[in-house]
Amino acid sequence: MTVKEKIAALRGLMQEHGLAAYIVPGTDPHASEYMAAHWMETTWLSGFKGEAGTVVVTMHEAKLFTDSRYYLQAGIELQGTGIDLMRASDIDCPSINDWLKSVLKEGEKVGVNPEMFSVNGYSEMKAEFGESGLGLVSVDLIRPLWTEGRPAIPQSPLYEYEERFAGESVASKLQRIRQKIAAKKADAMVISALDEIAWLLNIRGCDIEFNPQVISYVVLEQDKCTLFVLPEKIDAKAAKYLAAQGVATKNYEEVFSYLRDLKSVVLYDGAKVNEALFEAIGGKSVNAQSPILTDKAHKNAVEIEGERKAMLQDSIALTRFFKWLEEEAFRGCKKQTEWSLMEKLHEFRLKGENFVEECFGTIAGYKGNGAIVHYAATQDNCAEVKPEGMLLLDSGGQYLDGTTDITRTVWLGGTIPAQAKRDYTYVLKGHLMLGHIRWPRGTRGNQLDALAKQYMWQAGITFGHGTGHGVGHFLGCHEGPQNIRTDMNPTVLEAGHICSNEPGIYRTGEWGIRTENLVTVIPAPRTEACTTDDEFLTWETLTLCFYDTTLIDMSLMTKQEIEWINAYHKKVYELTAPHLTKDEAMWLQNKCKPIQL
Amino acid sequence: MTVKEKIAALRGLMQEHGLAAYIVPGTDPHASEYMAAHWMETTWLSGFKGEAGTVVVTMHEAKLFTDSRYYLQAGIELQGTGIDLMRASDIDCPSINDWLKSVLKEGEKVGVNPEMFSVNGYSEMKAEFGESGLGLVSVDLIRPLWTEGRPAIPQSPLYEYEERFAGESVASKLQRIRQKIAAKKADAMVISALDEIAWLLNIRGCDIEFNPQVISYVVLEQDKCTLFVLPEKIDAKAAKYLAAQGVATKNYEEVFSYLRDLKSVVLYDGAKVNEALFEAIGGKSVNAQSPILTDKAHKNAVEIEGERKAMLQDSIALTRFFKWLEEEAFRGCKKQTEWSLMEKLHEFRLKGENFVEECFGTIAGYKGNGAIVHYAATQDNCAEVKPEGMLLLDSGGQYLDGTTDITRTVWLGGTIPAQAKRDYTYVLKGHLMLGHIRWPRGTRGNQLDALAKQYMWQAGITFGHGTGHGVGHFLGCHEGPQNIRTDMNPTVLEAGHICSNEPGIYRTGEWGIRTENLVTVIPAPRTEACTTDDEFLTWETLTLCFYDTTLIDMSLMTKQEIEWINAYHKKVYELTAPHLTKDEAMWLQNKCKPIQL
Repeated sequence: MTVKEKIAALRGLMQEHGLAAYIVPGTDPHASEYMAAHWMETTWLSGFKGEAGTVVVTMHEAKLFTDSRYYLQAGIELQGTGIDLMRASDIDCPSINDWLKSVLKEGEKVGVNPEMFSVNGYSEMKAEFGESGLGLVSVDLIRPLWTEGRPAIPQSPLYEYEERFAGESVASKLQRIRQKIAAKKADAMVISALDEIAWLLNIRGCDIEFNPQVISYVVLEQDKCTLFVLPEKIDAKAAKYLAAQGVATKNYEEVFSYLRDLKSVVLYDGAKVNEALFEAIGGKSVNAQSPILTDKAHKNAVEIEGERKAMLQDSIALTRFFKWLEEEAFRGCKKQTEWSLMEKLHEFRLKGENFVEECFGTIAGYKGNGAIVHYAATQDNCAEVKPEGMLLLDSGGQYLDGTTDITRTVWLGGTIPAQAKRDYTYVLKGHLMLGHIRWPRGTRGNQLDALAKQYMWQAGITFGHGTGHGVGHFLGCHEGPQNIRTDMNPTVLEAGHICSNEPGIYRTGEWGIRTENLVTVIPAPRTEACTTDDEFLTWETLTLCFYDTTLIDMSLMTKQEIEWINAYHKKVYELTAPHLTKDEAMWLQNKCKPIQL
Repeated sequence: MTVKEKIAALRGLMQEHGLAAYIVPGTDPHASEYMAAHWMETTWLSGFKGEAGTVVVTMHEAKLFTDSRYYLQAGIELQGTGIDLMRASDIDCPSINDWLKSVLKEGEKVGVNPEMFSVNGYSEMKAEFGESGLGLVSVDLIRPLWTEGRPAIPQSPLYEYEERFAGESVASKLQRIRQKIAAKKADAMVISALDEIAWLLNIRGCDIEFNPQVISYVVLEQDKCTLFVLPEKIDAKAAKYLAAQGVATKNYEEVFSYLRDLKSVVLYDGAKVNEALFEAIGGKSVNAQSPILTDKAHKNAVEIEGERKAMLQDSIALTRFFKWLEEEAFRGCKKQTEWSLMEKLHEFRLKGENFVEECFGTIAGYKGNGAIVHYAATQDNCAEVKPEGMLLLDSGGQYLDGTTDITRTVWLGGTIPAQAKRDYTYVLKGHLMLGHIRWPRGTRGNQLDALAKQYMWQAGITFGHGTGHGVGHFLGCHEGPQNIRTDMNPTVLEAGHICSNEPGIYRTGEWGIRTENLVTVIPAPRTEACTTDDEFLTWETLTLCFYDTTLIDMSLMTKQEIEWINAYHKKVYELTAPHLTKDEAMWLQNKCKPIQL
């Protein structure tokens, strides 16, 4: 079917169901950041292949709402489909709800697949439509249409994530989560977030690239725990492991009937659990933040030690990569591209102990491409890299020991413009201040955000992405609830949290600069100068990799900042060198040599 | 009547009304920070004279809940009253609601005077009691008891606040507030906050010390505006002025019957408007943040220019005071106290153009007393001040041109301990960074708070009060909605806002250090380095007074900070010197002389 035929067929179904509009969002039933192809309904319907987009179809119009990252791509991919591009990042672009309210008449109805909306998102939409006299109807109109060539739900095997990596037994996790369910006056909990399920049951999989998760649901009761998962994913070893944990399995889709039959008060996290699950619960329920979300964010000692090991592997790989880049990449006029650098870095990471895969597509942004925040070079569409100018390299690995995420920006050769040095130095100063701050217990990430921005702000510069995100343990590279952003997130930073620290400056067409380490919250020792009993927290930096000191504008640096860099470089060298060849160690020693004002 | 007799009489009334408990909070019907004696019901009932306290009486017990500032005072004043002190700042002290829930039985009722609780506060309390099966009843039991010797509601005259000071006509203000009422789909608005009424009608009074406000209510409709005020306060001139503005007057207490008879949809700010007014509205109403609150916070050009004039007067007074303190105060072994310094400063301020009164009781905290954040020396109870050690001086003036608020900490003599220098320098560095920051439009005060604390945090030190509060224009020294605190206040900082910038360090028994300027938000010019269209804002410092540079630990300072101090001192000297005698100007010039690393 062509896109036009698909839209026409959808309108036929809409008419049958008495719907004036239908919304197809680019999500899956698990509120995942990365989706399996099975759920790429917007792509199937519209032909648009970008990662974020929502198709809205009325009887007379069809629109794709997407953000500025995808304007160009959408413009090309939508040609001839009859679907109009709605430039959602533009100030004058209406929201999806506002647009529908403007084109629909009172009494008309909008349809959505309730599996694709969180309970909270669905109820807000329902309330908003209700105020304008519009109805909202739960119905999946894509499933009956997309019958041919729809990729199956992935069936890759589920495997045990050993306790020596996880640091806590399933029995222990189940016990404390069951206590927290009871404390919320509920009898059971439905869990749909894939990273929460993987954490709770110490299981991993490879259903989705970069994310070692298992597509499934869990219903946790006081006396049982049921995993809803495709039976193809459970081999004998997995079955034995799950049975030993007291985990029963049922088929993936059975979660809905199971919930319908359940007579318990069910706890659910309305920010993540989809509306279809909520509708299946039917009876009494409690909507509250998932206790797994918060427990999972507090890494245990084994997880933190694992992170340190994974970081060492990253450090070895990055040292070898940057040495190769400096000494060999361009030797004999060899040609390099952003793609070839990504492949080379993958090659070095692959040799690392317990390395499984990358945790996201490496971003190698050369010169102006570095300024495109979500830039993704492909083999066919990438810039040639020469031994000159700026390179931004953001990458991360999934190791059995933990998940890494690091950005370094380096100068490949030629004279460094003064503005490039200033930009790099503003970013570095903010990154250093945020990374070395102590703060009284009770402080939120949004209170620390400006510490990373203060120097660039003074120069009239800021950036649009978050300064820090939580990181999973051999799980998603992004996880909550803590972060360092401007949003009014009420989460307080607590010992065991891991965050990225990644300010940046993006100069369109010229360069992008970002410096990123992962840091974990630890108690700070009391100082002699303290005036109260307030407890202080601080960071331990987990990432190990030198900063490019040639890019620093020393006139902007303080003595304190120089000391911080020298101490960090000493640590990077001392921990990494024993694992390098003599030649590599000497090269790293030079990169880590003390600098002075 | 003795306190015991009063409590017994109250219990008699409680029995008549079927109440198991009665709460008497230390507030007034206008949610004022400073109260007229007429409303000091907790003091009348309990004998406790502190500014913050709530008396809770059951049939068997009577408790006074107050915070740590007043533990000592309350302990003395409650002796023999039968009222127990509840130390509300202690971690193990229950809240008033929790305590009542623990001693009352299901079905029992708690009484309160609804004039003394905001609508929001009342409804939260009602919901909380409801969950425990307790009832909440609106009834004033103090009025029938406190008949003898109750001070009248102040009757001081209302006067016009001239447009040359206010910068905007009443007609203009009424027009824009009426538009905002209509935009909220309301027909009328009830206003009870005294500073909002004073701003709206360009009136002032002297009902309450430090606060040039007029005790009154306003009901603003599209076609009329009614001021509810004691008729004694309106002389012929005031009557003529109000009539000219189209403002009708009715007696103060008539606001309740007026609202009962009103057939309009009434807008009210539930955070400020008292429950009794809400109960009088009866019909349809809209609870929303007051549009006057937000409009009032955006100072117009005349108000800002007025602030600058008031600051100059303060600068002259403070220069003369500090010169006197250094050269004359202790001459010939003259004895000084915290009180005598307060009186002397008042003497200097009194000579200032357009000075009316202080805007709060001056805090002169010598040595250890400076560490008591809300310290208030009295004539009979104050420390002797000698030409040695640390003095914290926090004061402010009500000028017709505007309201000032400034804190300086100075060293009076003797060898400065190294820790004192470090403390002073951490505070100063934070104050300077916060005072010179630029930030992208859309930033909240709570995002900037840590900028003022980062240096003391690194030393393991913090402080418990807000870093900055809004300031009225010849009105309350504290006003919202903007501030610089850790709270999740959603208010974004906008051009025309005025805030204080006042970090501090308090070392019990040793010294208190605070440095405070008032600053106003202005647009920051675009920089050549800017990377986006983001608009930036920054501060203009309004306060003019030198910092004590002898207290700076230069080893902690950066070049940038030294430049900021020198530029500020240059401005202080240049603006103030023309208004000083030659001798005074030379003295100030020395205080303002450039420092270097």
